[in-house]
Amino acid sequence: MDTATALLIADLVGVAVFAASGASAGVGKRLDIFGVVFLGAVAALGGGVFRDVVIGDFPPLAFADWRYSVTAAVTALVVFFFHPQLARIRRTVLVLDAAGLGLFTAAGTLKALDFQVPIVGACIIGMMTGIGGGLLRDLLTAQIPLVLRREIYAVASMLAAAVVVIGHRLGVQDLALLVGAAALTFVVRVTAVMRDWSAPVAREQ
Amino acid sequence: MDTATALLIADLVGVAVFAASGASAGVGKRLDIFGVVFLGAVAALGGGVFRDVVIGDFPPLAFADWRYSVTAAVTALVVFFFHPQLARIRRTVLVLDAAGLGLFTAAGTLKALDFQVPIVGACIIGMMTGIGGGLLRDLLTAQIPLVLRREIYAVASMLAAAVVVIGHRLGVQDLALLVGAAALTFVVRVTAVMRDWSAPVAREQ
Amino acid sequence: MDTATALLIADLVGVAVFAASGASAGVGKRLDIFGVVFLGAVAALGGGVFRDVVIGDFPPLAFADWRYSVTAAVTALVVFFFHPQLARIRRTVLVLDAAGLGLFTAAGTLKALDFQVPIVGACIIGMMTGIGGGLLRDLLTAQIPLVLRREIYAVASMLAAAVVVIGHRLGVQDLALLVGAAALTFVVRVTAVMRDWSAPVAREQ
Repeated sequence: MDTATALLIADLVGVAVFAASGASAGVGKRLDIFGVVFLGAVAALGGGVFRDVVIGDFPPLAFADWRYSVTAAVTALVVFFFHPQLARIRRTVLVLDAAGLGLFTAAGTLKALDFQVPIVGACIIGMMTGIGGGLLRDLLTAQIPLVLRREIYAVASMLAAAVVVIGHRLGVQDLALLVGAAALTFVVRVTAVMRDWSAPVAREQ
Repeated sequence: MDTATALLIADLVGVAVFAASGASAGVGKRLDIFGVVFLGAVAALGGGVFRDVVIGDFPPLAFADWRYSVTAAVTALVVFFFHPQLARIRRTVLVLDAAGLGLFTAAGTLKALDFQVPIVGACIIGMMTGIGGGLLRDLLTAQIPLVLRREIYAVASMLAAAVVVIGHRLGVQDLALLVGAAALTFVVRVTAVMRDWSAPVAREQ
Repeated sequence: MDTATALLIADLVGVAVFAASGASAGVGKRLDIFGVVFLGAVAALGGGVFRDVVIGDFPPLAFADWRYSVTAAVTALVVFFFHPQLARIRRTVLVLDAAGLGLFTAAGTLKALDFQVPIVGACIIGMMTGIGGGLLRDLLTAQIPLVLRREIYAVASMLAAAVVVIGHRLGVQDLALLVGAAALTFVVRVTAVMRDWSAPVAREQ
């Protein structure tokens, strides 16, 4: 298996995990089968579509390569039909989600740098690639996005973006950067979940 | 009347119908006159703007051709001033909406294929052209989008997209495809409304 | 100080004011520190990102020039830490917001015209540059956008766009147009706030 294949598989695993999170939210909101698949696809592909639109890569990868949408749709269908059994593997999904967050952010930041976006912009675009799908999922279910409320989620994503930008400047190889940044995010995010860390809220008036 | 004129008129009828749906929602939510026009325009033009942005056609048709935004705004104003009388033609609006859904989806799918989007992506973009405006209308009124909940609406749209992609492969002429796909969607959607069909929901845990 | 510098400073003041409005909404909704900064950045930069995406200018200025995102983030952090003291300068913020609205709209309309968007489309894009950030801020906090409800806000923005388009046709210089349109919007908006003007709502059925 060469590097490109390894990256594609990692990317599709991220798509599947994010699709599962969107589909679960859809089942919880009593959406119909189409709504569940749609919410899964938006959660899985929304961040990448935003990234490709703002860097000017048309059509976005999610529409150019059928494996992305099919992976998202199939995963969402599995959640639709088997969600009671899936409740048991919630812990596994949380762990996979942490891996997906790091990977999507790091890959998004790298792609933005490749498209000549300056470093601060590339960090923001990378972070939006990681958290954008979850934001849209929450918007479509008429909720204030989870990522804006309590947990260390976006911060873990920002960390991955910063590591990629710095490493890229220092000439570190893309693949090493991807793996390193994703691993770091993964560790921070899993630790935050286990220790129940959360970001501060402004004091009341 | 040549084909291009016929298509433009059909497109503007779709814009008017979708604008009426958005404006009605705005009146129902007690928005002011600007809010009603804005919601009408978003419902009418949102799907097409999404389509043009992801296929890379700038500026989107809704901003390039003034007839689109003016048709949407005038329709919304009519709804704002005459909405009590319009309640009586609700059935007509539902029928026109079914026609608009099929037409927008079919035209969106064809345009995506013209812009070299592969078939699966073109289907998704076509469907988003058809259902995107309604999604945004519901988002702006802080509701879980109707299309994700119960009715056979998005499925009728997917059908139109699939017919266009298959027909296009088989070399069927664009105009025939447009008419055929839109008609099929129309029949499916109207039947679903009359028979009260709906898509399944996941069983409770 | 030359014109370009003056314009950049005016633009960044607008960014800061809009970021403060987004951050205040985030503090009110009890978001965490990241959520407050994110909401501030969306309110400040969302309109401009929309403008650049639909006119086809990639990457959008908000990602291409770090001063925009840093200004937004720093302002939002100030609001996060000092919001009780800021309540006292509410009147000042309202006045600055009126100035930002006019400036963003006028600059957005001009940029769209520069990118060959026809006049009606350029007006809409200009208005979206002015009101888009506030719309997104309200969407992310799961509210029906304020701008769609009561006050004379979007109408003041439309006025600025119309003045720019007409002045541009008549050959008025860009800088004079910017200043004139922004000043007109400012006066209309501030008067509307002081006199408690609001746009009409449709009569009940």
